[in-house]
Amino acid sequence: MPDAKLLATFPNPHPDRDYIIEHIAEEFTSVCPVTGQPDFGSISVEYVADQLCVELKSLKLYLQSYRNEGIYYEDVTNRVLQNLVDLLKPRWMQVRSEWTPRGGIHSNIIAATGPRPGGLP
Amino acid sequence: MPDAKLLATFPNPHPDRDYIIEHIAEEFTSVCPVTGQPDFGSISVEYVADQLCVELKSLKLYLQSYRNEGIYYEDVTNRVLQNLVDLLKPRWMQVRSEWTPRGGIHSNIIAATGPRPGGLP
Amino acid sequence: MPDAKLLATFPNPHPDRDYIIEHIAEEFTSVCPVTGQPDFGSISVEYVADQLCVELKSLKLYLQSYRNEGIYYEDVTNRVLQNLVDLLKPRWMQVRSEWTPRGGIHSNIIAATGPRPGGLP
Amino acid sequence: MPDAKLLATFPNPHPDRDYIIEHIAEEFTSVCPVTGQPDFGSISVEYVADQLCVELKSLKLYLQSYRNEGIYYEDVTNRVLQNLVDLLKPRWMQVRSEWTPRGGIHSNIIAATGPRPGGLP
Amino acid sequence: MPDAKLLATFPNPHPDRDYIIEHIAEEFTSVCPVTGQPDFGSISVEYVADQLCVELKSLKLYLQSYRNEGIYYEDVTNRVLQNLVDLLKPRWMQVRSEWTPRGGIHSNIIAATGPRPGGLP
Amino acid sequence: MPDAKLLATFPNPHPDRDYIIEHIAEEFTSVCPVTGQPDFGSISVEYVADQLCVELKSLKLYLQSYRNEGIYYEDVTNRVLQNLVDLLKPRWMQVRSEWTPRGGIHSNIIAATGPRPGGLP
Amino acid sequence: MPDAKLLATFPNPHPDRDYIIEHIAEEFTSVCPVTGQPDFGSISVEYVADQLCVELKSLKLYLQSYRNEGIYYEDVTNRVLQNLVDLLKPRWMQVRSEWTPRGGIHSNIIAATGPRPGGLP
Amino acid sequence: MPDAKLLATFPNPHPDRDYIIEHIAEEFTSVCPVTGQPDFGSISVEYVADQLCVELKSLKLYLQSYRNEGIYYEDVTNRVLQNLVDLLKPRWMQVRSEWTPRGGIHSNIIAATGPRPGGLP
Amino acid sequence: MPDAKLLATFPNPHPDRDYIIEHIAEEFTSVCPVTGQPDFGSISVEYVADQLCVELKSLKLYLQSYRNEGIYYEDVTNRVLQNLVDLLKPRWMQVRSEWTPRGGIHSNIIAATGPRPGGLP
Amino acid sequence: MPDAKLLATFPNPHPDRDYIIEHIAEEFTSVCPVTGQPDFGSISVEYVADQLCVELKSLKLYLQSYRNEGIYYEDVTNRVLQNLVDLLKPRWMQVRSEWTPRGGIHSNIIAATGPRPGGLP
Repeated sequence: MPDAKLLATFPNPHPDRDYIIEHIAEEFTSVCPVTGQPDFGSISVEYVADQLCVELKSLKLYLQSYRNEGIYYEDVTNRVLQNLVDLLKPRWMQVRSEWTPRGGIHSNIIAATGPRPGGLP
Repeated sequence: MPDAKLLATFPNPHPDRDYIIEHIAEEFTSVCPVTGQPDFGSISVEYVADQLCVELKSLKLYLQSYRNEGIYYEDVTNRVLQNLVDLLKPRWMQVRSEWTPRGGIHSNIIAATGPRPGGLP
Repeated sequence: MPDAKLLATFPNPHPDRDYIIEHIAEEFTSVCPVTGQPDFGSISVEYVADQLCVELKSLKLYLQSYRNEGIYYEDVTNRVLQNLVDLLKPRWMQVRSEWTPRGGIHSNIIAATGPRPGGLP
Repeated sequence: MPDAKLLATFPNPHPDRDYIIEHIAEEFTSVCPVTGQPDFGSISVEYVADQLCVELKSLKLYLQSYRNEGIYYEDVTNRVLQNLVDLLKPRWMQVRSEWTPRGGIHSNIIAATGPRPGGLP
Repeated sequence: MPDAKLLATFPNPHPDRDYIIEHIAEEFTSVCPVTGQPDFGSISVEYVADQLCVELKSLKLYLQSYRNEGIYYEDVTNRVLQNLVDLLKPRWMQVRSEWTPRGGIHSNIIAATGPRPGGLP
Repeated sequence: MPDAKLLATFPNPHPDRDYIIEHIAEEFTSVCPVTGQPDFGSISVEYVADQLCVELKSLKLYLQSYRNEGIYYEDVTNRVLQNLVDLLKPRWMQVRSEWTPRGGIHSNIIAATGPRPGGLP
Repeated sequence: MPDAKLLATFPNPHPDRDYIIEHIAEEFTSVCPVTGQPDFGSISVEYVADQLCVELKSLKLYLQSYRNEGIYYEDVTNRVLQNLVDLLKPRWMQVRSEWTPRGGIHSNIIAATGPRPGGLP
Repeated sequence: MPDAKLLATFPNPHPDRDYIIEHIAEEFTSVCPVTGQPDFGSISVEYVADQLCVELKSLKLYLQSYRNEGIYYEDVTNRVLQNLVDLLKPRWMQVRSEWTPRGGIHSNIIAATGPRPGGLP
Repeated sequence: MPDAKLLATFPNPHPDRDYIIEHIAEEFTSVCPVTGQPDFGSISVEYVADQLCVELKSLKLYLQSYRNEGIYYEDVTNRVLQNLVDLLKPRWMQVRSEWTPRGGIHSNIIAATGPRPGGLP
Repeated sequence: MPDAKLLATFPNPHPDRDYIIEHIAEEFTSVCPVTGQPDFGSISVEYVADQLCVELKSLKLYLQSYRNEGIYYEDVTNRVLQNLVDLLKPRWMQVRSEWTPRGGIHSNIIAATGPRPGGLP
């Protein structure tokens, strides 16, 4: 089950500058809470670090912890955002999930801590 | 025939946050009211939920209810928008339809409840 | 329901030569006989005419007659082949159907009157 | 020759809302007024209707009326715009033409009744 | 764990003809037996049925039964082939797996009951 | 109307060798003999010259002469082949036409003087 | 060598309207002033005409006049812009060059007479 | 190891104008400081020069000097930016790195001297 | 330097069947023996195992051992083939290398132990 | 003008094996002998070396020597083939040229020393 304790950090090497870090996990899978069928998609995390960056391997393990979890699209997206925000306290963060089709319909969910800051690259 | 009663909802799990939900139905079909010939296209629904989200399977069944309906492109787009707005009362919603070519011309229609809010992700 | 009587022919303008005619219908839809849900796909007909060619508009109307028919992928493909073979008595014909994904699986079916003749272009 | 009388209209079914209608004609052809050689391209019409929409088949016939007309790229684009504006009196309209290469150069022309309104979807 | 008993069949509706049935499952996942990390890929099954066809939903459930199984690429491919051959006794069958990159290398495995028969479409 | 006299030739500069010459005309247009509507497509000519090659500009003008001709797909393809064969007496020639969709169906026609010779590059 | 006198003009047929004209030359070549090796790229000219438009064939000949000129990427882009501005006195113009890779690096240069005017289509 | 002294400059030939220079190095490689495994990606440098431009071959050699350096994604991006800013003192500069997947996750980093100036082309 | 001792094997789990194993390494790099500049490309290994398969991680490390080796395209390809053939004694093997452009020319090299066996899938 | 003396060779490092070497020059340019206009295309050379391989930089310079030569497509292709065959005496060689469109028609020419040998990879 999803476990935020799997996430690790390292100090932002350039906290003096607002720059963008984006990690795109193409191999996300969880389980539909209604049908019990597996869902597949990608999870993109884009953020401006303050003092902490997320360590890449720990992010991979954290996302894998959803593998057998029954959870809605909307919930995955907001929970990943919340777990990372609690951990990193970023200046800004956005999480975007894109899902493979079910019954001819595919879905995207985008959540963020607020509007994209104006002065970003 | 199109039947808004097919649509079901579930409570927005994160009403405290403005986030985007997008469902893209690639397999939409209805009938041209003039020629009686089938039309094919996709219907994309993008919205910011307030208290309610649309349930995905009910959306599929609702869109299928247009299968044998004679209706213009412009009308499908606005009617889907109106049915979903009446049901969900979203903070913002946009419906975009894209149609396969007829006589060498293909068409897109985009309708929304208003301009995209500035602070969205 | 599928109706082979919708198909019309015209005389092959060049029966002295083995040449290939291919029609690809990208907007095919029928209904799953198990779930009652619509299926979507394309149907490609490739053939070497003998004395008769299939008229294009009649082919469109014939394929549309499957719109509300409950029928398996394998059956659609073989039935389209059989109806066209009965009508045209071609020197060779192949029908290929390609279907959009259901539950993460998409399918293709290919049936022919026999192996592709060696001397074709 | 180009004939605006070929264009027909129907009443905008949703005049209460500013929504976008786009028709893309991929098979446009006219004639170069200098060399007499045929030109090929696409014509996209994007607009916000007021009281009237352009009927799709009449648009096709109208665009076909340029088939043997000697006319410059810039002129086609502005004339299509003007004819449609005179007919529909839209709240906003843009016409974009894209042309296949001649002598290794391909061209695009975009004309509009004014800047894209800010509040559009 | 992989369970061939999940597979179901239906009678080949056209056993008199050698035709091709292909199912492509884009959302396959299993686990690396060495590292315990999830693997992702697609599994394509192409065959010429004799008396039996594989039922599509049962194929989906069967492939899902590998979700938490530690197994090598080469083994998955050959085991899927063997399970389906034992069940269907097809005239010919091929299984192809394609895997997402690990350490900058991606792999494909193709196994079949024998060479593709010459007279197939 | 189609006029084979527009075609010009030049001597094959390397008649001692069987090599392939291919010209692909992406901007072909003619008229449907039934509806009077314009058809659009591409015409590819691939051949092994004997003593004569077709001059490229003359090929362009010849193909343009179909612009206002009412003619079926099958007929265009075979007529272009025949006119070029009569003129060039090539060792082998194939003409392939590919047409834009009409009513959701697009078509390809391929005609040749015989099977592709075995020893070609 | 580059020769601005090759450029010809014609009167803007619609000076009453700010519209966009774009010409993209995909087959540009010049010579590297350091190594003497040929450079290859594309040159795109996008502008809002005032009283004059550039004639397309003259633009082709003008761009060809760089064929054997030793000149840097940055210089080509600014010189083409300057020559066209001197000639046309446009309301706005931008020139973009895109170059094929050298040593694994490819470059783009974009120069303009000023920011893109706000009210353009 | 990374060596900023490899970088060379030449005078901006058009310092009177704010224009964009972009160099995209598709063949960047460095080494992961944790695992010792090689990383692969692209580095894009986009800038508005003041008095100096970076010489292209020297940029290539400079980027190659990271080949056997153990360094994080975030650090490479910011260090390349800093080295070039120190050397060129540009009016604005942005560096974007895009990396091939590791464990199913690929990353992008974007750093800049500040927001993109409003009046750029 | 290239070191065949890095390669490890595991027993072919299905030696009774001729099936295809393909590994594609997209991130290969070595050094040009003439200029000392790095080369970049992909190496694809396709084979039919006899008693032994190559272990994937060891293949990665083996290919990485070329990182600072000065070696020609033709030589890399044949040496990888030879090292793997010596180790695995496969029933058939092919190695294909594809290289990024140098001076506007990109190259591919394909070497094999012999023609592809006829009865392979 | 085209100068075969620019071509250099090096000894085939693996003359004991029939393997394929392919060089694709994407940036070829010559001049149309009729109009004096530049032509652009790619030249691909694929061969099985006997005792000699062509040196890559010399191939680049040789192909550049056509830059200002007035020559037909068919002639370029056959002359490049002949010059390389005279120099390398390969076991087999094929030259393929692909040209950008002129007047809406693009052309490909393929010449070889004979049919592709059967046992090649």
